Amino acid sequence: MKTPIDFWFDFSSPYSYIANEWVDAVAARHGRTVRRRAMLLGATFQAAGLKPPVDHPLKREYVLRDFARSARFEGVPYRQPPAFPLPTQLAGRVFWWLADTAGEAAAAGWASAGLRAMFARAVPLNDPAALKALAAEHGLDADAAEAAWNDPLWKARLKQVNDEAIAAGVFGAPFFVVDGEPFWGNDRRAQIERWLASPF
Amino acid sequence: MKTPIDFWFDFSSPYSYIANEWVDAVAARHGRTVRRRAMLLGATFQAAGLKPPVDHPLKREYVLRDFARSARFEGVPYRQPPAFPLPTQLAGRVFWWLADTAGEAAAAGWASAGLRAMFARAVPLNDPAALKALAAEHGLDADAAEAAWNDPLWKARLKQVNDEAIAAGVFGAPFFVVDGEPFWGNDRRAQIERWLASPF
Repeated sequence: MKTPIDFWFDFSSPYSYIANEWVDAVAARHGRTVRRRAMLLGATFQAAGLKPPVDHPLKREYVLRDFARSARFEGVPYRQPPAFPLPTQLAGRVFWWLADTAGEAAAAGWASAGLRAMFARAVPLNDPAALKALAAEHGLDADAAEAAWNDPLWKARLKQVNDEAIAAGVFGAPFFVVDGEPFWGNDRRAQIERWLASPF
Repeated sequence: MKTPIDFWFDFSSPYSYIANEWVDAVAARHGRTVRRRAMLLGATFQAAGLKPPVDHPLKREYVLRDFARSARFEGVPYRQPPAFPLPTQLAGRVFWWLADTAGEAAAAGWASAGLRAMFARAVPLNDPAALKALAAEHGLDADAAEAAWNDPLWKARLKQVNDEAIAAGVFGAPFFVVDGEPFWGNDRRAQIERWLASPF
């Protein structure tokens, strides 16, 4: 039995959104599944002494252009959220609530729903009303979702995952681990595909 | 007449070394030439508030692994220089001395010689004796090369290019500009190839 591909992401990461659209198909072509791990980039940035790319002059202008171009390159719709980056701990807690109570498939569905809302429709995931509406639209009990993101249990779960990310060497998103080999970035797709065929 | 591809690089950049191995062939397939621009990453990092990736915990371990893996992915030999990153202003001044007095082809030859020495043989380009030996091996007058890197004229020329890089939005290396469209990183090869075929 081949091990799953670990896919670390943040709901506020455009490159994670793009990668989320191809990772399952890439994995399936090589008999793999994907284990999604929602985390908060802020925690890993702090551990690595990094800041979001849009907080740097010059780099900001470039990455805003590259987000959209990289989405076009992969054939994925893209709309830049006006407020960016956003805090995404509410969506992250809902992810872990689903993962631990309804299973990985339910959590993966929520990951795709959240990332697509954020980057194809510019839905502000930090807004509780917008997030409740998204939960309902996705077929979840919106009140239960809200209760989960306010529950110390899921707050602690997300914090624990952030610590696990840092311990695993994660400092950015998307971040993939294939049989122990780390790959950072949507732009490592080709290397991941070759690695899955035959480690090089 | 199609415009050349601007290729900004630093002699201390592993990803620039890798990109230097493919950029001419990619350009030629689309009827383009390459205009190399040696610069100092330190100047652009300062302008953008960035640090070298190896100066960040977590990211350091990752990029050292990724340098070598990305070289293997492109089929390029790689040897990590023990002291890294190195100051490369001497090699950069020789580049501009050649570009301005012997032409772009001579400068491009030096760029390849320097990058290959640094990353295929771990030659420390910051060491004047090693750099003189490399110049001689490359068929240059080593004393003239040394005189050039000590000449205020070429010191000023390199500084001027650093300012031009920042003005062009460059914050890292390799950095490409194709008809005004900026691409950062060795990992933008596929996007550049598609853009050259048809902007998307």
